[in-house]
Amino acid sequence: MKKLKRSARLVEMTQYLLSRPHTLIPLTTFADRYGAAKSSISEDLVIIKEVFEEEGIGDLLTLAGAAGGVKYIPKMPKEQALVFANDLCSQLQQKDRILPGGYLYMSDLLGQPSLMNEAGKIFATAFSGKDIDVVMTVETKGIPLAYATGAQLNLPVVLVRRDHQVTEGSAVSINYVSGSHKSIHTMSLSRRALKEKSRVLIVDDFMKAGGTIQGMVDLLAEFDAEVAGVGVLVESGAVESEERLLHDYVSLATLTAVDPKTKEIFVSPGNYFDPS
Amino acid sequence: MKKLKRSARLVEMTQYLLSRPHTLIPLTTFADRYGAAKSSISEDLVIIKEVFEEEGIGDLLTLAGAAGGVKYIPKMPKEQALVFANDLCSQLQQKDRILPGGYLYMSDLLGQPSLMNEAGKIFATAFSGKDIDVVMTVETKGIPLAYATGAQLNLPVVLVRRDHQVTEGSAVSINYVSGSHKSIHTMSLSRRALKEKSRVLIVDDFMKAGGTIQGMVDLLAEFDAEVAGVGVLVESGAVESEERLLHDYVSLATLTAVDPKTKEIFVSPGNYFDPS
Repeated sequence: MKKLKRSARLVEMTQYLLSRPHTLIPLTTFADRYGAAKSSISEDLVIIKEVFEEEGIGDLLTLAGAAGGVKYIPKMPKEQALVFANDLCSQLQQKDRILPGGYLYMSDLLGQPSLMNEAGKIFATAFSGKDIDVVMTVETKGIPLAYATGAQLNLPVVLVRRDHQVTEGSAVSINYVSGSHKSIHTMSLSRRALKEKSRVLIVDDFMKAGGTIQGMVDLLAEFDAEVAGVGVLVESGAVESEERLLHDYVSLATLTAVDPKTKEIFVSPGNYFDPS
Repeated sequence: MKKLKRSARLVEMTQYLLSRPHTLIPLTTFADRYGAAKSSISEDLVIIKEVFEEEGIGDLLTLAGAAGGVKYIPKMPKEQALVFANDLCSQLQQKDRILPGGYLYMSDLLGQPSLMNEAGKIFATAFSGKDIDVVMTVETKGIPLAYATGAQLNLPVVLVRRDHQVTEGSAVSINYVSGSHKSIHTMSLSRRALKEKSRVLIVDDFMKAGGTIQGMVDLLAEFDAEVAGVGVLVESGAVESEERLLHDYVSLATLTAVDPKTKEIFVSPGNYFDPS
């Protein structure tokens, strides 16, 4: 690659780092790439680090030594995440979302890649300190959220199916009780999808009593894998706490009440924003 | 916002543009944001544009006039896309992918967000000249690819379900014949998911004879919507051309043969790379 001026180098390094979150990049990679001295690269990184931190883009970790380099850790500051959550809440409160049975139509919101990517960045921030090998979700509606989270954490996504599919090879199936209906369902995971002892971040779009997520937790036990965390976009707060199967999770919004008569919907920011 | 030096401004503008593809940003937005003169912003954009174009990141379109501004169009050069396709082919040729019935295990590849994002960028490049309102796929495995494409094109994603779901409201269902098995299936789309006259880019992970995609095309007719394009990650080339239901599509890889005895798999770059 031809030598770049500092100004051009800053643009290129910024995009290089942004497109490789949670990836250690040796300084020599940049030095070779731009035909620049390591000292110049270090100066560039100081500038980028300052902007990333001041603008709430994320951290730039510098690791010294022979195995050293720089790593971009996407992080969204809590105030910025709260702006996102408040906006999500006001969108969820639109009256025309109520469906027969008191269900809430959310597919238009889940269908916005930019919204999913922001939520994924918040989960990546919430779980950035955890040791995680893989992000898991069950089909269908949690998939974009799981991928957005996986992209920000630079982790693969494992997809639990509702039925056993011919394209998945041999699989482990379990039955689980969906808490809100007390009905029995099946979910299955391909044997080769998950290594033993994996540490798994579970992500889903909606949680009521937590039966579906508890199903994934039970499935993980079959793989001798561990739960590293649970993140849900929206939780239903209208669940008696003794009915709730799961207590340790992060939610971005809480659906507190739906009134099918007046069509009023009440949503507030989730437990991620609780004063700790 | 406090005034930034040019070097910091370049970093911030680069990340701002990269996170808002296909979005028109008035120069005044940047001028206000950084307390800088429009002329300085214009100079910054020249630097960014040069790097984006030389490094194959994408185009930076500048629109003059009162309604003017700048727009980042993600594009991957064909040579770079071919490197991606060749890598995909060699991964798909790994012998242990063959499942009973001659199916190919692809979930590990589809589970890599970074790989999906690259494929999405290639589709965004392939269809960048088309007038598209929405990206559509049918559950399950094409979903990450559809979102990656939607993110790069700044378009919403519409998800066709295999069954009618209570969380989708009223829906239109159709039956379709899956070409490879000649079996009849159902797919359905929520009435409120798609506006009439929408121009739709259909994306899926795999296409054999094209029955599933033809089903989506038929479903679009029910919504008085139009097909703006079809993109598939992998097509099966082992289909007689009179059996193929669909002829106008873009594929990134072609599965030419699977030998269940020797476990050999032959994959080559898709029709996107055909000499035109």
